[in-house]
Amino acid sequence: MLISILTFRGFNELDSLIALGILNRIKKPDWRVNICSPENSVTSMNGVTVSAQSLLEDIPKSDAVIVGSGALTRDVVQNQEIMNMLKLDPARQLIAAQCSGTLILAKLGLLGKIPACTDLTTKPWVQEAGIEVLNTPFYAENNIATAGGCFSSQYLAAWIIAKTVGIESAAEAIHYVAPVGEKEEYVERAMRNIAKFIV
Amino acid sequence: MLISILTFRGFNELDSLIALGILNRIKKPDWRVNICSPENSVTSMNGVTVSAQSLLEDIPKSDAVIVGSGALTRDVVQNQEIMNMLKLDPARQLIAAQCSGTLILAKLGLLGKIPACTDLTTKPWVQEAGIEVLNTPFYAENNIATAGGCFSSQYLAAWIIAKTVGIESAAEAIHYVAPVGEKEEYVERAMRNIAKFIV
Repeated sequence: MLISILTFRGFNELDSLIALGILNRIKKPDWRVNICSPENSVTSMNGVTVSAQSLLEDIPKSDAVIVGSGALTRDVVQNQEIMNMLKLDPARQLIAAQCSGTLILAKLGLLGKIPACTDLTTKPWVQEAGIEVLNTPFYAENNIATAGGCFSSQYLAAWIIAKTVGIESAAEAIHYVAPVGEKEEYVERAMRNIAKFIV
Repeated sequence: MLISILTFRGFNELDSLIALGILNRIKKPDWRVNICSPENSVTSMNGVTVSAQSLLEDIPKSDAVIVGSGALTRDVVQNQEIMNMLKLDPARQLIAAQCSGTLILAKLGLLGKIPACTDLTTKPWVQEAGIEVLNTPFYAENNIATAGGCFSSQYLAAWIIAKTVGIESAAEAIHYVAPVGEKEEYVERAMRNIAKFIV
């Protein structure tokens, strides 16, 4: 299982790395979670530089792809070279987009008539791309999921784990990262958000 | 205002970077939040390499220090060279520790009789160091705060903002990062966790 977290220049640290941390709670020999970027290193919206663990060429090999968010996503969707590299295939991959990552899915034509979640800043641009934006943290149809608000990246990660390993493992991963004394509350809310989309 | 987030080899991505992302919601010219490490780059418990934005030498210049968590904290507390560099001074700095970062505060003798929060794995080691461990996500006395469970790093960040900028700004920062449709719930819980410790 190869999971690529697409992480572009100006990325939001919470969006890429909350998902990465939670997904890495799965300890299986074939389970690999990569920060996947256009270049060998990528600097966040707040000046944090992270080494890429894979490049966009690895996208077709991925079993799941999270499209991360950031401050420069409107530049990404206008960069035809990058957009051509985003060979996402919901027929055989789980596709999850976080906040402004939803704009990328919209521009790639992957959402079709599927409504979507995104952050409040990106909302008008996603609507302009013809997509209905929901006032909820998480939504999924078949193999495509979207989430809105940085902390919703926990729901994308939980959805991927639930779809591929099982709902119990998703609950355990959220339990681990949740605040002490609030673990049941966090697990209950996460499961409530994703359970209806797990078939 | 210089805030250093101490980030060691084997660090937990959520612990350092959730705090960093939230603290960077404050847009003031003199507000600077740094990943602060013993070396120029540091690799996380899940293989993510981040460039340090400052080195441990910057600790005395810092107005606030967050001691991050990770899988190798027991090595850190036995590394006398690193421990000698951790010149934390709660008389003039806000000191916040996340999960196993609490073990570092305990070993530095900074907690004294102050009870503390930490994660479930680190709990026995902090107790062994003579500190009472609470079953709550966040606790603070004067200028020292501790938090337990990755997502509690939001409370450390909110506490630092509330103590230095104001409680309203802390609420706004949490509102921004919270999931769409759950923002009021996240803000209410965060404020409930920190408000009684703001004087």
